[in-house]
Amino acid sequence: MTATSIDELCINTMRFLAVDAVEKAKSGHPGTPLGAAPMAYVLWDRFLKHNPADPKWVNRDRFVLSCGHASAMLYALLYLTGYDLLLEEIKQFRQWGSRTPGHVEYGTTPGVETTTGPLGQGFANGVGMAIAERSLAEHYNQPDHEIIDHYTYAIVSDGDLQEGVASEAASLAGTLRLGKLIYLYDDNDVSIEGSTSIAFAENVAQRFQAYGWHVVGPIDGMDIPSVESAIKMAQAAEGRPSLIICHTIIGYGSPNKAGTSAAHGEPLGAEETRLTKENLRWPYQEPFTVPPEVLAHFRQARERGSRWQEEWQVRMETYHMAYPEEARQLDEELRGDLLPDWDRELAVLFSDNEGPIATRETSGRVMNAIAKRIHSFTGGSADLAPSTRTLLREYGSYGFDEYRGHNMHFGVREHAMGAIANGMALHGGIIPYTGTFLIFYDYMRPPVRLAALMGIRVVYIFTHDSIGLGEDGPTHQPVEQLIGLRSVPGLVTIRPADAHETVEAWKVAIEHRDGPTALVLSRQKLPVLDQTELAPAAGLRRGGYILWEAAQPPDVIIIGTGSEVHIALESGKILQEKGVSARVVSLPSWELFDAQPEEYRHEVLPPDIGVRVSIEAASPLGWERYVGVEGIAIGLSRFGASAPGEVIYEKLGLDAHHVAAEAEKLLRRKI
Amino acid sequence: MTATSIDELCINTMRFLAVDAVEKAKSGHPGTPLGAAPMAYVLWDRFLKHNPADPKWVNRDRFVLSCGHASAMLYALLYLTGYDLLLEEIKQFRQWGSRTPGHVEYGTTPGVETTTGPLGQGFANGVGMAIAERSLAEHYNQPDHEIIDHYTYAIVSDGDLQEGVASEAASLAGTLRLGKLIYLYDDNDVSIEGSTSIAFAENVAQRFQAYGWHVVGPIDGMDIPSVESAIKMAQAAEGRPSLIICHTIIGYGSPNKAGTSAAHGEPLGAEETRLTKENLRWPYQEPFTVPPEVLAHFRQARERGSRWQEEWQVRMETYHMAYPEEARQLDEELRGDLLPDWDRELAVLFSDNEGPIATRETSGRVMNAIAKRIHSFTGGSADLAPSTRTLLREYGSYGFDEYRGHNMHFGVREHAMGAIANGMALHGGIIPYTGTFLIFYDYMRPPVRLAALMGIRVVYIFTHDSIGLGEDGPTHQPVEQLIGLRSVPGLVTIRPADAHETVEAWKVAIEHRDGPTALVLSRQKLPVLDQTELAPAAGLRRGGYILWEAAQPPDVIIIGTGSEVHIALESGKILQEKGVSARVVSLPSWELFDAQPEEYRHEVLPPDIGVRVSIEAASPLGWERYVGVEGIAIGLSRFGASAPGEVIYEKLGLDAHHVAAEAEKLLRRKI
Repeated sequence: MTATSIDELCINTMRFLAVDAVEKAKSGHPGTPLGAAPMAYVLWDRFLKHNPADPKWVNRDRFVLSCGHASAMLYALLYLTGYDLLLEEIKQFRQWGSRTPGHVEYGTTPGVETTTGPLGQGFANGVGMAIAERSLAEHYNQPDHEIIDHYTYAIVSDGDLQEGVASEAASLAGTLRLGKLIYLYDDNDVSIEGSTSIAFAENVAQRFQAYGWHVVGPIDGMDIPSVESAIKMAQAAEGRPSLIICHTIIGYGSPNKAGTSAAHGEPLGAEETRLTKENLRWPYQEPFTVPPEVLAHFRQARERGSRWQEEWQVRMETYHMAYPEEARQLDEELRGDLLPDWDRELAVLFSDNEGPIATRETSGRVMNAIAKRIHSFTGGSADLAPSTRTLLREYGSYGFDEYRGHNMHFGVREHAMGAIANGMALHGGIIPYTGTFLIFYDYMRPPVRLAALMGIRVVYIFTHDSIGLGEDGPTHQPVEQLIGLRSVPGLVTIRPADAHETVEAWKVAIEHRDGPTALVLSRQKLPVLDQTELAPAAGLRRGGYILWEAAQPPDVIIIGTGSEVHIALESGKILQEKGVSARVVSLPSWELFDAQPEEYRHEVLPPDIGVRVSIEAASPLGWERYVGVEGIAIGLSRFGASAPGEVIYEKLGLDAHHVAAEAEKLLRRKI
Repeated sequence: MTATSIDELCINTMRFLAVDAVEKAKSGHPGTPLGAAPMAYVLWDRFLKHNPADPKWVNRDRFVLSCGHASAMLYALLYLTGYDLLLEEIKQFRQWGSRTPGHVEYGTTPGVETTTGPLGQGFANGVGMAIAERSLAEHYNQPDHEIIDHYTYAIVSDGDLQEGVASEAASLAGTLRLGKLIYLYDDNDVSIEGSTSIAFAENVAQRFQAYGWHVVGPIDGMDIPSVESAIKMAQAAEGRPSLIICHTIIGYGSPNKAGTSAAHGEPLGAEETRLTKENLRWPYQEPFTVPPEVLAHFRQARERGSRWQEEWQVRMETYHMAYPEEARQLDEELRGDLLPDWDRELAVLFSDNEGPIATRETSGRVMNAIAKRIHSFTGGSADLAPSTRTLLREYGSYGFDEYRGHNMHFGVREHAMGAIANGMALHGGIIPYTGTFLIFYDYMRPPVRLAALMGIRVVYIFTHDSIGLGEDGPTHQPVEQLIGLRSVPGLVTIRPADAHETVEAWKVAIEHRDGPTALVLSRQKLPVLDQTELAPAAGLRRGGYILWEAAQPPDVIIIGTGSEVHIALESGKILQEKGVSARVVSLPSWELFDAQPEEYRHEVLPPDIGVRVSIEAASPLGWERYVGVEGIAIGLSRFGASAPGEVIYEKLGLDAHHVAAEAEKLLRRKI
């Protein structure tokens, strides 16, 4: 058997494992596996440095399947090359509880580097992985000690390249000259509505050249030697990311569906599957057939992988001896561990008698203190660092000053920022953060959701969190973004009330390893809550706590978050003067509070105290959970306005006298 | 006084009106007005066909200020050219209740064509306007009767071009060969974090050429003859949109801030303002000075505008005589009026004994029926038309078959789709719709929000609305998107339960003139609710209604929306068999229901019936409003899973027996 024919046999095995899996599941996407199997095969067989026995090996090449709907192709590769994934599991494709879901999911299947499906995300995740690789390499590699040195590859589709998030990420990758980023573009000219020409007539090569990429092709993406030499050219083009334009045929081999959108998103059907197998001279009509010689060929990946990893392990041991301190730190960062006293700098950031201070400003101080203790703390803002206060003053600009810099300049690209930060977290060795105004969460909802779905540690900083931002007006004033954050399963959202709570919020965020955290911060200055008179801010860790009360038991409960805690407090004191005993609860995080034992929640919000008013400068939607249907949730059921912040607060009834009056009204109704 | 010097005087007047407005407001953006005033002046003085006396003149050129933060410059132009905006109002810049908000707002200030501020939106809105212009021109213009024939201009900034939404819209504009779209790119090399080179090193000219645009420049954007000849070149380049790259200096003239990010987003300060005025040889230190000769020069716009509009009016009258039917229809469409019996085709779309049918499928039939009666009904999908069922079968593809086509192919570009649809609505003469999966609402949140803020009629169709979509898994299964839609002030969200409710939902959407509507539709088939046994679907217009009840008064209320109404109904019947009297409420639209008089709401959900269970295959957040804190909201507080839809429903407890059991549990607790 010649080399070519084993290659073809391997490629057809991948194709038909995918086709058969889709056929058995009665749903899925056969078109891309049929067309893209050759390029995926060449990459995995000739280039990809990975070890199926240890999918978490630090220095492996990363592979992103940005067109996540081609999942069956990746599952085939994972099974064939010997990851912990059985053929039986491919037969359970898209079934409840299986490790082979419809779109690839990080954490579900070993060897899947990121969750993809929503197009463009994987493209940007890969950019984040390449950024992380370069950052770690610059920090840790030493002359003759190349500890971190791997490629990030992806297969990207027509759909990926049409999404804005990919454009944003591509422009940034070009600016940052990420030479070890190599993307194979599965250019099959077909998307769901038909030929891409109806909506996508651009010159992709020219566009990527404009971004500063090295473009190879178009090549015949189904021709093995062409793909092989293109990847070599891409590797040789140091200092620029590469896009290899691979012409392929969607649904290749299917006599009646190839080259059409009919091949994209539904099973070929039994008869068409039979014809396709015949047409591609695949002798096995029996589904899920894997010829032994094919399995043997693919499984060499395990041997190669072990060798690569062992070689690296030797280098790592030498490195440990030569640079013990760096090696220890690198190990720690790759594990994502923190020093036991990582937060020791956070105690001394401001004095108790300091005047009012915006929570974004405290956050900035906290971040600069964190950076001194957590070397892997790296991130940036979507061109708003001076406003979001996210600059780490002593740590340089990544890519601009040097690749050792910790400050990313994402440009005005919130969506890519989120997806790139996800990629950095997925790579490991980095604790990433992002910064923008809360309103622009709307520009980056998909990556925040995906981080929550993947359970990865990313800190999203959202400042300018309400109408309190003032004159910029309703286009910049969030109303529904806070409930938006709270609605994402697995995301922890914290809106601290003052400097002390902001410090506590950052502690929670950094220690929250298994999911993302959103920090919601004020533009405007806020008083510092007196830690002697009031309950300590450490109560934030429980999500909500009794901040102050006039007497026990209280007549009414006033609940606030963030900047409105101060209004709540003031209203409590107004009520006190009127002889009404109020309890003021600070509720910075619904998720943390809801996770407390019922006993604690009832201690803070006793069920028998039904007179409750909440105040938050945001949509009141969802507040019924805490104030009850008979309570009053003061908030904004409309958009904001352009005016000084304090004027808007007053005009829209977000003030202590209004809160107190509503509480009294409720009390009277009860009596 | 030479021609040049009046030009300079005019430009400096614009500059200092903006600078003084920012100074007085103590907040705002002086940098762009100082640098971009010359290009804006040349465009408005030499090219823009508009009539300040009638900002709604149909055939005016459209002008979009995509960098909405440069609002003060536009207010200066509007005042100076004689729109209904006084100098006094410019002095009220960014104050409560003024018509000169921080970012330009459609509907607030006459002459403002769209609300901008969130970057990239205006860029894409302009593309929508140009699409609408071309569509109307193709439909209505006749030989020798050019009724619709205008340009769409915009000033776009570095920030706009970095945003993915602009990339998406640019690629589509190139594909569609929108020759009457002319954008001036204010290329000042500075954004908030400093030089754009730190994040934006791409070759913009080459990128836009790749999209199929005609690129002029870079030119000196502050040189009047250069801008003038560039716009002429752009006009001459028919068949391709044009980007004129204008090099400018941010904060031009400011001795200490020009060319730096310090000029961007804060007042220059009194002393720097003084120095800048001196430096630009502006003799008036008194704020808000408008030399009489400048006002006289600008105000010629009124005369020119009246003449243009009168000439057009004459053409329109001739057209009315030659093509009375077309003229009548055009007038009607431009007013956005509907025929009294516009919905007459909707009664006969399916038979009552038709089997189960997905609401997306009914929606597709409704849309095709609507298209027969509403000629201006135009839209499309983000490459999902076969799945969203949004294709108008008899109406061609816009730009591909012909520009008369009603079907837009937006490509895999949800964000631009939303913003382009907004632009189409803003232009007038079109009732636009968009289509994608509900999960991809996350990709297009900003334009949906802006449509709600602007109060414009756009119908957003979101199909595949729950875990019911099945095997595609959690990346494609919405959980928090429904509460997301409901949280946007001014947006009407409707999730119909069956074919009949879908017809009613479309009626509401089309008749909802002063804001957008989101239609949330199932992928899976749903039974058709029996209109003889159950309450008529017309109840949908009130947002919620009693669909069925075993007896009155009921013991329990079961509330459902969309596909879960059928589960609610089944649970009601299970309870009936057990001797428990249940009322089943269909609640397809919270906004419509909450807008009903209290009397009606209490009729449907009587306060004294506290035993309530809701079921919705989405985040239960916010449901406390209808079930009370003691009621039970059955939903999803987690992400979905990849499996057949019915399996996921069962595994996650979304079934009638669970609903009935929860209701019984509540009942027992009450007793």
